[in-house]
Amino acid sequence: MKPSMSSYSKKQKNIKIISGGVTAPKGFLAGGVACGLKGKGKLDLALILSESDSNKAFAAFTNSKAAAAPVLYDKDILNKNKNIRMILVNSGCANACTGDQGKNDAKTMAGLASEVYDIPLDQIVIASTGIIGNYLDLKKIENGLKSLLDTINQEGGGEAAQAIMTTDSFNKEIAVEVKFSSGSGMIGGMAKGAGMIAPKLVPQATMLVFITTDLELPEDTKIFNLAVDNSFNKITVDGYSSTNDSVFLIANSKSGTKISSNSDFALLRDAFEFICQELAKMIVMDGEGATKLIHYFVKGAINEKEAEIVARNVANSILVKTAFFGEDPNWGRIVAVAGDCDVIFNQKKIDIWYGPVKMVENGCQAEHDKNMLREVMSEREIDVTIDLNLKDGKADFYGCDLTYDYIKLNAEYKT
Amino acid sequence: MKPSMSSYSKKQKNIKIISGGVTAPKGFLAGGVACGLKGKGKLDLALILSESDSNKAFAAFTNSKAAAAPVLYDKDILNKNKNIRMILVNSGCANACTGDQGKNDAKTMAGLASEVYDIPLDQIVIASTGIIGNYLDLKKIENGLKSLLDTINQEGGGEAAQAIMTTDSFNKEIAVEVKFSSGSGMIGGMAKGAGMIAPKLVPQATMLVFITTDLELPEDTKIFNLAVDNSFNKITVDGYSSTNDSVFLIANSKSGTKISSNSDFALLRDAFEFICQELAKMIVMDGEGATKLIHYFVKGAINEKEAEIVARNVANSILVKTAFFGEDPNWGRIVAVAGDCDVIFNQKKIDIWYGPVKMVENGCQAEHDKNMLREVMSEREIDVTIDLNLKDGKADFYGCDLTYDYIKLNAEYKT
Repeated sequence: MKPSMSSYSKKQKNIKIISGGVTAPKGFLAGGVACGLKGKGKLDLALILSESDSNKAFAAFTNSKAAAAPVLYDKDILNKNKNIRMILVNSGCANACTGDQGKNDAKTMAGLASEVYDIPLDQIVIASTGIIGNYLDLKKIENGLKSLLDTINQEGGGEAAQAIMTTDSFNKEIAVEVKFSSGSGMIGGMAKGAGMIAPKLVPQATMLVFITTDLELPEDTKIFNLAVDNSFNKITVDGYSSTNDSVFLIANSKSGTKISSNSDFALLRDAFEFICQELAKMIVMDGEGATKLIHYFVKGAINEKEAEIVARNVANSILVKTAFFGEDPNWGRIVAVAGDCDVIFNQKKIDIWYGPVKMVENGCQAEHDKNMLREVMSEREIDVTIDLNLKDGKADFYGCDLTYDYIKLNAEYKT
Repeated sequence: MKPSMSSYSKKQKNIKIISGGVTAPKGFLAGGVACGLKGKGKLDLALILSESDSNKAFAAFTNSKAAAAPVLYDKDILNKNKNIRMILVNSGCANACTGDQGKNDAKTMAGLASEVYDIPLDQIVIASTGIIGNYLDLKKIENGLKSLLDTINQEGGGEAAQAIMTTDSFNKEIAVEVKFSSGSGMIGGMAKGAGMIAPKLVPQATMLVFITTDLELPEDTKIFNLAVDNSFNKITVDGYSSTNDSVFLIANSKSGTKISSNSDFALLRDAFEFICQELAKMIVMDGEGATKLIHYFVKGAINEKEAEIVARNVANSILVKTAFFGEDPNWGRIVAVAGDCDVIFNQKKIDIWYGPVKMVENGCQAEHDKNMLREVMSEREIDVTIDLNLKDGKADFYGCDLTYDYIKLNAEYKT
C-alpha cells in the first residue's frame, strides 16, 4: 500500500519537505544497478558516496543474536572510524547464517569497493538484504561496482532506493530542508522493508535505512538514538526483527551550517524524528500485504514500559490484525490481548477508542455512533486509543493489518 | 483439519483407546441442544451430569487479567466445594467483558440449572464461549436447560462435544480404559477451540476442556496439573490466550477402582497426560484454517525456561507458520526468530532438523537429501528439532501453519 504524499504534512514550518532522497543533501552521489543477484534485470546493488570526508556517521543495528555478517563487519569499522564516505548495499542475499565464509565475504565486498573507488577500507560500510543462508556471489558484486562507477550521480537517490528493495511494493524516500538560525541544510533518507519487521535496534525481509545530511552535526549522538527509538523501534509488521536490520546516517558538512544554539538543536531533533517517523510509517504501510496503517496509543498504564508492552502486543496480534482487515471493530480481541499481557491491568477500567469513537467504557461496550464507527474502520489510517486508566504511563506503536496477500507473499516466497 | 484416528496410538498397553467421550466412564450423562444462542438450529448448550456425587473435581483456568464472568464464578464455587456434579456450557456468547451484569448473569445461569435439575448450586459449574462483549440471553438458556432434561443420556457425549463448538471444524472427543493393578476404570474427555489459542492455564474462540472419570482419584492434584502443563499449556494457534479458557475434571468413583500403588499412580499420570495431549493436538490440528500440525522440540538451551521461550516464539511466528503452509523449509526464519528471543544464543552452534533431515549445522545450511526433505514438508504432521547446543535445557511446543483460511475466518467473523 503506497501512502499518498498528501499525508506527509509539515511538522514545523522550518522543516520543509522537498523532493528526492539521499542525494538531496549537497555532496552526495548515489545510484543503483542490476548486478544479477536478484535476476530478471532487477536493480540489486546500491551505492551512496559522499564526495568529501564526513564529519560524522552514526549507525544502529539489529539486536538479534543471529546478526548477519555485514552487521558484525560494520560494527567493527564504526568502532574505529566515524569518517564514513561510502555505503554499499546489495539486495537478493542477506549474507546471514553464513558462518566464517560470510564474514570473509563481507570483508571482501567492502574490499572490492575500496579497490574500485580507491577509498580507504575504513571509510566504507556495507549492508545486505534478501534470503538468509545463501552465500554472496562476489563476482556479480564486483561487476556491479564497476558499472556503478559510471552510474552514480547527484540525482541517483531514487535508483538507489529501488535497488535495496526486496518484497517492498514501492521505494521509500524522503528529504527535507531545515532552516536553522545559523543557516539551512538538507536531510535525505531512504528505507526498505516490508516483512520481518519489528526492529529492536541497538534490531528478515530486513529493514534498512540510510540517511544523509549536509549539516555539520554535533558530537552528541543522543538526537539520533532518540529519533530511532521513537520511530523504527515502534513499528511492527510481523513481530520479529531481522538478522540484518540497520540504520545509517552520514553527515558531510557541505552546507556549511553548524548546529550550535539550543533552539537549533531542538529543531534538528524534530527534523530527524520527522524523517525517521515518515520512513518508519512507509515501511509499515508497505507491510507485506497490508491495506491499513494502525497507530496504537496506550495510556493510563502503571508506567511507560507496561504501556509499551500492551501497545506492542496488540499491534502484533494476528487476531487484532485480521479484524482490521475485515474492518471489524472487534474490541474484545484487544481486551483479550491486553489482559493476557504481563502488566498491571483492571478489566473494569479499560476504555477503547477507534478514532474519535469511544467503543469501550469501563471494560464493557459503550453506546456509540455506528455510522461514524463504520467510517473510521474503512479508513486506510486508523488511530486506536487504549486507556488502562491506572496511572500515567503511555506509549505508541505502529502496526498494519494481516491479509490474504501476506499469506501469499510468505507461503510462496520459496527459499 | 481433522486428524486421522490412526495417529492416536496407545502410549502404554494398559491404556486402551475406546470409543466415546465424556459419557464413556460409568455414571455420566450428557447431551446438547439448540437453545438459539448461535441460531440456525445449531447445538449451543451442553450439559454433563454425574448421576452421583463426585469424589473429586479439579479445574484450571485462564491466567488472563480479563477473565470472563463464568471463570470468576467457578473459581468461587470450587474454592468452597469439590463435589461437583454438573457442568453447564453454552457456546455463541462468551459472557466476557460484560461487567457486573455479566457476573449476575453467570450466577443466574447456574441458578437456573440448580432449579431445573434440583441440584445444589455449589455442585454446579458453568462455562461460556463465543463473542466477547455480548450479554447472555438467559431466557434461551432456561428453555435449553428444560429441553436438556429429556435429552441427556449415557451416550450423549458426542452431542455435548458438538454443542460447545465455535469456529471448530470437528468435535473433539477421546476416551480410554485404563487397567490398574487394583482394577480398571475409564477416562473420557471433550474439548473445543480453534482460535485465540495459546492457553496459559492456571488461561477467545476459547479453549474449553471437560474430562470425566469413574475412578476414585487420589487427593493430590499434582497429576492433573502436570498433565495440563504438559499438553494445553504447550499449544498455540495464534499466540494469545482467551478470557474463558478452562479445563475441568470430574471423578465419580463409579468404577470402584481406587488408585493406591505407586505403579498405578504412574499409570494414572500417563493416562491423564495421554488424554490431555490428544485433546490438545486436536485443538491445534483444528487451528483456524490450519493444514499442518508442527511439533517443535528445542534442546541444548541454557535451561528449560529458555528452551520454552524459543519453542513458543518459533511456534507463534507468522513468518515460520506461513513458510510451513508453503511447505518451504525456510530455516532462516527459525534462526531469525530464535536469535530475536531474550535467551542465551550462539548463532555458530545452532542445528535444525525437519523430521529426520538435518538442515542446519553450526548455524549454516547443511548438506541434505532434498527429496526426503520435500517429503517431510508435505506431511500433515511435522517434527522440527532445534538444538542450541549450549546446555541441557529442553522443551516442546505444538503449533500449526497460517493459511488463507485463517484470514478468511478472522476477517469475516463479524462482531
